[in-house]
Amino acid sequence: MTIRMLTAGESHGRAIMAIIEGIPAGLVVNAEDIDAELARRQKGYGRGARMKIETDFVRILSGVRHARALGSPIVMYVHNMDWNNCKPLMSPVSVDLDGTILEKPRPGHADLAGLMKYGVKDFRDILERASARETAGRVAAGAVCKELLSIFGILVQSYIVQIGGVCADIKSIPKDKLFSKAEESPVRCPDKVASEKMISLIKKAGAKGDTLGGKFVVKISNVMAGLGSHTQWDLKLDARLSQSLMSIQAIKAVEIGEGVNFAALNGSISHDEIFYNSKKGFFRNTNRAGGIEGGMSNGSPIEITCSMKAIPSLAKPLRSVNIISKKAQRAQAVRSDVCAVPAAAVVAEAAAAFEIARALKEKFGGDCIEDMKKSVQAYKARLKTL
Amino acid sequence: MTIRMLTAGESHGRAIMAIIEGIPAGLVVNAEDIDAELARRQKGYGRGARMKIETDFVRILSGVRHARALGSPIVMYVHNMDWNNCKPLMSPVSVDLDGTILEKPRPGHADLAGLMKYGVKDFRDILERASARETAGRVAAGAVCKELLSIFGILVQSYIVQIGGVCADIKSIPKDKLFSKAEESPVRCPDKVASEKMISLIKKAGAKGDTLGGKFVVKISNVMAGLGSHTQWDLKLDARLSQSLMSIQAIKAVEIGEGVNFAALNGSISHDEIFYNSKKGFFRNTNRAGGIEGGMSNGSPIEITCSMKAIPSLAKPLRSVNIISKKAQRAQAVRSDVCAVPAAAVVAEAAAAFEIARALKEKFGGDCIEDMKKSVQAYKARLKTL
Amino acid sequence: MTIRMLTAGESHGRAIMAIIEGIPAGLVVNAEDIDAELARRQKGYGRGARMKIETDFVRILSGVRHARALGSPIVMYVHNMDWNNCKPLMSPVSVDLDGTILEKPRPGHADLAGLMKYGVKDFRDILERASARETAGRVAAGAVCKELLSIFGILVQSYIVQIGGVCADIKSIPKDKLFSKAEESPVRCPDKVASEKMISLIKKAGAKGDTLGGKFVVKISNVMAGLGSHTQWDLKLDARLSQSLMSIQAIKAVEIGEGVNFAALNGSISHDEIFYNSKKGFFRNTNRAGGIEGGMSNGSPIEITCSMKAIPSLAKPLRSVNIISKKAQRAQAVRSDVCAVPAAAVVAEAAAAFEIARALKEKFGGDCIEDMKKSVQAYKARLKTL
Amino acid sequence: MTIRMLTAGESHGRAIMAIIEGIPAGLVVNAEDIDAELARRQKGYGRGARMKIETDFVRILSGVRHARALGSPIVMYVHNMDWNNCKPLMSPVSVDLDGTILEKPRPGHADLAGLMKYGVKDFRDILERASARETAGRVAAGAVCKELLSIFGILVQSYIVQIGGVCADIKSIPKDKLFSKAEESPVRCPDKVASEKMISLIKKAGAKGDTLGGKFVVKISNVMAGLGSHTQWDLKLDARLSQSLMSIQAIKAVEIGEGVNFAALNGSISHDEIFYNSKKGFFRNTNRAGGIEGGMSNGSPIEITCSMKAIPSLAKPLRSVNIISKKAQRAQAVRSDVCAVPAAAVVAEAAAAFEIARALKEKFGGDCIEDMKKSVQAYKARLKTL
Repeated sequence: MTIRMLTAGESHGRAIMAIIEGIPAGLVVNAEDIDAELARRQKGYGRGARMKIETDFVRILSGVRHARALGSPIVMYVHNMDWNNCKPLMSPVSVDLDGTILEKPRPGHADLAGLMKYGVKDFRDILERASARETAGRVAAGAVCKELLSIFGILVQSYIVQIGGVCADIKSIPKDKLFSKAEESPVRCPDKVASEKMISLIKKAGAKGDTLGGKFVVKISNVMAGLGSHTQWDLKLDARLSQSLMSIQAIKAVEIGEGVNFAALNGSISHDEIFYNSKKGFFRNTNRAGGIEGGMSNGSPIEITCSMKAIPSLAKPLRSVNIISKKAQRAQAVRSDVCAVPAAAVVAEAAAAFEIARALKEKFGGDCIEDMKKSVQAYKARLKTL
Repeated sequence: MTIRMLTAGESHGRAIMAIIEGIPAGLVVNAEDIDAELARRQKGYGRGARMKIETDFVRILSGVRHARALGSPIVMYVHNMDWNNCKPLMSPVSVDLDGTILEKPRPGHADLAGLMKYGVKDFRDILERASARETAGRVAAGAVCKELLSIFGILVQSYIVQIGGVCADIKSIPKDKLFSKAEESPVRCPDKVASEKMISLIKKAGAKGDTLGGKFVVKISNVMAGLGSHTQWDLKLDARLSQSLMSIQAIKAVEIGEGVNFAALNGSISHDEIFYNSKKGFFRNTNRAGGIEGGMSNGSPIEITCSMKAIPSLAKPLRSVNIISKKAQRAQAVRSDVCAVPAAAVVAEAAAAFEIARALKEKFGGDCIEDMKKSVQAYKARLKTL
Repeated sequence: MTIRMLTAGESHGRAIMAIIEGIPAGLVVNAEDIDAELARRQKGYGRGARMKIETDFVRILSGVRHARALGSPIVMYVHNMDWNNCKPLMSPVSVDLDGTILEKPRPGHADLAGLMKYGVKDFRDILERASARETAGRVAAGAVCKELLSIFGILVQSYIVQIGGVCADIKSIPKDKLFSKAEESPVRCPDKVASEKMISLIKKAGAKGDTLGGKFVVKISNVMAGLGSHTQWDLKLDARLSQSLMSIQAIKAVEIGEGVNFAALNGSISHDEIFYNSKKGFFRNTNRAGGIEGGMSNGSPIEITCSMKAIPSLAKPLRSVNIISKKAQRAQAVRSDVCAVPAAAVVAEAAAAFEIARALKEKFGGDCIEDMKKSVQAYKARLKTL
Repeated sequence: MTIRMLTAGESHGRAIMAIIEGIPAGLVVNAEDIDAELARRQKGYGRGARMKIETDFVRILSGVRHARALGSPIVMYVHNMDWNNCKPLMSPVSVDLDGTILEKPRPGHADLAGLMKYGVKDFRDILERASARETAGRVAAGAVCKELLSIFGILVQSYIVQIGGVCADIKSIPKDKLFSKAEESPVRCPDKVASEKMISLIKKAGAKGDTLGGKFVVKISNVMAGLGSHTQWDLKLDARLSQSLMSIQAIKAVEIGEGVNFAALNGSISHDEIFYNSKKGFFRNTNRAGGIEGGMSNGSPIEITCSMKAIPSLAKPLRSVNIISKKAQRAQAVRSDVCAVPAAAVVAEAAAAFEIARALKEKFGGDCIEDMKKSVQAYKARLKTL
């Protein structure tokens, strides 16, 4: 069965939750491993007050027994500490409130479009679900997927390459140090000098009530060739990864490999020539394609760059209109981060891990880890005979 | 019922086909309208010999009676003229061939990954389906979707902004002339000067046996607010459009609105402030978001930029390895285009039209045009009361 | 967006949960209404010890604010009281148990097949999810769907027609009394005499350590014509209802209208002739088809009969084999009901309500109740002009 | 990737088609094998005039090269000979007809419900797709699935057990002769005496302008344990098979194993006790469950009984109403079969084969036959160690 995943929960409701099913039985699932990913998501210089309230940890409500996946749906529950402050506001039960509603939609958010679509008066009914707090659920589900991938040696990692106008100098850093250095940086940027500039930029933006966007890379290493398929538009791995990554709040561009740079390159220098030796088998010396050719993984690392817009919840709000009075007013001020690019990169790892795990399950089947392992081994053995 | 679409067919097989279902009954469907889109896909300076063999036209095999959709699955069949030259090679029946197979996979194509995944010896078994000729099917299905959208005033259009190193100067062209000018240009570029430079660039590249990529914009006008949804990762309109567009052969980047430019922008200048007057209702003076906020259309035009890599079938082939002998050899030379960016833009219109039609059907339902119209009217009337 | 529903949770785990999405915003959702359905599921003469431990009630964890659906995923949580007695046994965390595992699979249950499929040693890993306690989640989701249907006057109801060898005399009961009488009966059977015989039969079976199956009818009233579709195999309403109902634990037959009786009937007496008068429009005097023709609702009530096998958890267990020793042994004795047919009928109402709600949403769209209402009204108005 | 299948085509349109994807590369696909199944569908005493016009054979339009599946979508095209007689009537192009439309909907058919749903005037627009001629597509796709299953020794077969009031005496026939005897019978009934009575019954019904229904069994042999899953309602194998079989035109009841008989049986005699010996491993001496426990195949043959209503196209039509005049009239007389139960059984084999193939692919993965085989072998080897 394919892997399916849904999230649920409002930002100031009781909890953010994820349900994931199709995880092979026998996979080791520990709350601590998931919590470690949740903690990575909460970090990053530039996060706002909410992250001071929350210290996310997961409660596994189903699908895991004695630290092993049962093969049944896994529900992960991340409590919103802020719920304690918001109970009447967000109660599932009818409550006698003073009738205060949010009336000044924030440009760049789901507020206005959602209010129109769903016919609600108070755009809190929209923003509570549109909020990027939802991504706690995706990170929890992604952590389980990462665990599954790790059995096959597949790693999903990320690093920041740009925040606002500051770009990192990635080429000067040894490839095998990129992630360890990113993990050490308060903004997940492996370039130490750029890292410091980014922090100072965030400080300045914060002081002005402004926010910042940026750019990051997600890298999936040790993926076998053959995930995804060229045979149908909705089976292509790059297309599925794009959906998954573009669905992350505030992501506005997804690039595979050289991405937008391809537009300017001639064909003679756009592709990854093919080589062979008896030890490595077929191999490439370049990876412009970002590990995907014809909608399939080609055995090189998958590399994707995502661009994120600056968070639209500004301490110094933008011009808007009061929904009721129709008068021009500044948008609702809502507590927010100055820069969430480092967090978004961690979310993107989770989203990518989910898609790779799904593609893996579809290709290899296997209701338990043992069966899946055998199926993968047989495939790899066949490839060696090529 | 939601709209579903699959394509089928090999590049040199009997035909390329598309099946689309969920189109409301009563929609006017004429082969000529579809053929006009197929012709737009075939045009473009830089296309190769294949386009001289083919003059695509559709045969509607099912789902349409007396020029009206029945509500049942519509199968569209586009014959491959080249099939007549390839019958033994591509026969569904066992044939006594001399055993010649394709042995030198082309970097940048599905050839090698597909050969590994599907366990085939002759990578013709892969390239025949991976070929962008498949997009004739998507264009046919997209033409039907465009027809549906046109009932609601929704237009899906495209123009080229870059080919190789040549960029168009889009800002100097009046917005309402962009598409008429693009249609007149042999490379679908509204900037006449750039257009000529592009043509000369293509000529030069062709002379060297090289190929070119580029960049184009897809614009969807007159979309009502509220398509897509912020409530679940796989319902977001931007994410679905990204999957659809990234699934087009050789597309390597998808940007919504300002796209990659967002990374460098502060929040204070990243969003589209909200205004109101009694005539227009709520409106924006900018469209940095590209018409989508929180995974929903916001009423502004949807604008997406796609980057395409140069075609990997080169007249002067890249280095590769012979699958059988494992010796270093140049890749298989395969007849191809020098530049297919203009064609890809037309395909992208079709892919986008499909996603918008799908989102429309999911939001408004309607098994016949009359019912769908009433549902849309009632919605628009409600929005006016806001 | 279509309505999606997944359940999660193990029988003695922390909770049974359901996630349902696509419910239009603005629908009134009260925990009490859901609890009333959960209580109906728990009732029924013949239920076992577990139902004495549990008094199910729902906690709505997401998707509802101030008693109104937000349009976002609704998570419903039903706590397992028995969890308190089973914490170490079912803990998601590794626990030092004595290593006792379930070794004697029960014929008629998922135990043995599941153990093979999922490669587990202890078939508790299977039975915990296979248990019909899962249906608490479906009943909770179904209660929300019933609420949605009620807005359009659609009712989903059930009554028992057979338990073991005792058949009810349904024809002698006025149609409009069937459900009120069923609700009064401890076995949900509207025929009072049969009802008493059923109870006495259950008593006897229980005393012998045996169990009982039976048969019930689900009736969906006031459905408009046109749900489902004849155009594709997987869109047919009868087929979807069959999947949904057959997926309920222990259901082994689904009949639409006359069902198995059709086999013996000539065509001249198998169908529902069509009549017309200006007041009713088109109507029928019979309903042999059970309200579905050509995979679509035809405006008559939908009537489905389900047959349920006797519960395979017997106080006097059947012959089995010890998984470890391979010796012939009696199956594991597991606490269970003597007869759960009345409960299964309530679950079937929920399953049917889900499918009808899903078909309704697909046909009419509507992100909020107001929009959906208008779409339905316009459709009904059009039908009146026929 | 999972196996997907859609059909298309109108009864008197150009063709009936099926598209199936996800079939592993390398599977041998011959048109003759498919044609043999199409011929089985056309046979059966009681078929009408249409079957004299048509001699169905398939053209494989895509997805197969040199008699081997490519792993890409397979389109199968079955030409409607009757199309030659119906071109203006069914033309996809606007045609100047005399305006004759079908006005008298047939009870028991999609005619009236479809006309309402799709807002059409002429119910030919509905019946053309609702017609059971569509099943030619399913049989073609099912033939490919059967080919895939045969590699793993899995057989899908059927036999008729009842036509009208005549029931076969199945118990007196050796199990291994059931299908060979069914194949020899003009009504696919293995009981020769009953077979003759059925034929004579059909003769009589035909003479009276009446039609007949019946009952048949589909049996799937040599299925490994573990297809389907108990973990989620929509993954259960029995539920999926029910959807697939109930979606066949005129099928009104689906029973798994003992089916409706279970209602009357005590638990002590309802299940299949478990035995073991070192040669067979775990085994059963009975198969009341029909090969499915807990939504999973259990290693016993899967046995399903379907009941079919008599065809509602009667030579002596039923009472109906003229759609335009609203006057009571006899329903439209449409050429039809007297009894199509034998044909429906062949269609049911195809529908079941599709679901089993789909479940197999989901469990074992495998993009080519070689990979799938290894995955199945490893699983079977693991089961032997139990």
